[in-house]
Amino acid sequence: MNTARIGKLIGVSLGPGDPGLITRRAWEVMHSDAHMTYPVRSRSSDSYALGIVQRAGVNLPEDSSPLFFPMTHDPEKLGAYWMEAAQTVLSVLQTGRDVAFLVEGDASTYSTFGHLARTLGALDATIAIEVIPGVPSFHAAAARLGEPLADVDDMVAIVPAGYGIAMLERLLDDFDTLILLKVKPLLNDIIDLLERRNLLAHSCFIEKSGAPEERIVRDVASLRNEKVNYLSLLIVKNPERQRGEIARGCRKVVRVEEL
Amino acid sequence: MNTARIGKLIGVSLGPGDPGLITRRAWEVMHSDAHMTYPVRSRSSDSYALGIVQRAGVNLPEDSSPLFFPMTHDPEKLGAYWMEAAQTVLSVLQTGRDVAFLVEGDASTYSTFGHLARTLGALDATIAIEVIPGVPSFHAAAARLGEPLADVDDMVAIVPAGYGIAMLERLLDDFDTLILLKVKPLLNDIIDLLERRNLLAHSCFIEKSGAPEERIVRDVASLRNEKVNYLSLLIVKNPERQRGEIARGCRKVVRVEEL
Repeated sequence: MNTARIGKLIGVSLGPGDPGLITRRAWEVMHSDAHMTYPVRSRSSDSYALGIVQRAGVNLPEDSSPLFFPMTHDPEKLGAYWMEAAQTVLSVLQTGRDVAFLVEGDASTYSTFGHLARTLGALDATIAIEVIPGVPSFHAAAARLGEPLADVDDMVAIVPAGYGIAMLERLLDDFDTLILLKVKPLLNDIIDLLERRNLLAHSCFIEKSGAPEERIVRDVASLRNEKVNYLSLLIVKNPERQRGEIARGCRKVVRVEEL
Repeated sequence: MNTARIGKLIGVSLGPGDPGLITRRAWEVMHSDAHMTYPVRSRSSDSYALGIVQRAGVNLPEDSSPLFFPMTHDPEKLGAYWMEAAQTVLSVLQTGRDVAFLVEGDASTYSTFGHLARTLGALDATIAIEVIPGVPSFHAAAARLGEPLADVDDMVAIVPAGYGIAMLERLLDDFDTLILLKVKPLLNDIIDLLERRNLLAHSCFIEKSGAPEERIVRDVASLRNEKVNYLSLLIVKNPERQRGEIARGCRKVVRVEEL
């Protein structure tokens, strides 16, 4: 029986871009003697996560290493890259050292960390994995806007906009807040929808929330025909939503409008 | 013209309960000379937010003060308490001192901070308000479970369960992940729904995520007839959801199942 210590994988959420939004636990791991890794899209591109670390004034140890997560939807290529990343991590864990994988946003939410953890688990299900949650970009965006993302009894949907306008229109009937991700390919159609539903005044666009290049656009219609960044999102509030009854505690009450 | 400095209100998100999930910016404000306030439900009850501060080993200054946010749905009573809290804050701001309002979770998400900020803004729209976002309880819950909250192209709904079983059933057709809040009054009915839809194996219950009393229950059916805590939630994944086409980048591709 092999009783040598095997390291654990730590998914370290760095938050959306502002180094002030790194948690104390993430900060602690960033300064531990774990082997530091971070995602990059290609050998020639910068790592968004590493940029947050650098803006925080932290110099990672020299042996820190990128793991490659390319921008492709080809499942075979993706699988090969995930396997390579997992094997790189596994080889360090087998020396007894922990591996920290530093990711932007929250490691459980649309994150490359999920692919790494799943692939590593398939290689060796006994490996311990710790996930340090972080501030998701849309919660940081709401804070920057000074608008609640969810008020009492609100329903919130987080939606990759690519599912299409008919889907978005349907969701507006049920939800108080829509968080639309990856709006780039459908932005003009979304603007048309918001105009038709009288929701332009209740919508806001944010790109790279919390990063130095952060951009907030409250006049969403002005973005028509613009090519926006991949890391952009729209928050749409729907104050006209019709609510039904809601069960609270042990009794049913009809919702009353508050203040 | 009065040019005396007026303080700003800072909404300080402390995360769901684990003091390690406090952000660096929140930590900085907790140690600043701002006047510290925190919500309590009544004069006799503990403040959940204050409990996080205490577990972090931080002693707030002696002049720190609770603000009262009672558990009622009576709009008149609520409005009176919100006004009292806002006026307390305003009187400190007018001395030129900043006021920090320390809240559990994320200040933009189902938080008493929203009521305070809105009421204060109604009293004086010129007051500066900073919101420090935090880790929401459901992202911390996903991390504790070691399960992604959202994988590539996933749709996520955050839903106060009280809207009823028919609504939840309908959402299961569109969403990959349901985050059900305030499940207490409908828990048995929700368990029946999950059983009927064969989703019990993909559901998990978490109470007070990150706090010392945290409880994770993977066998959700075992909770039948139990009175659960107010700060509890269910994460339901729906691996059977039928997806349509999704538009990505500038082209339309049919989604392929990944690894």
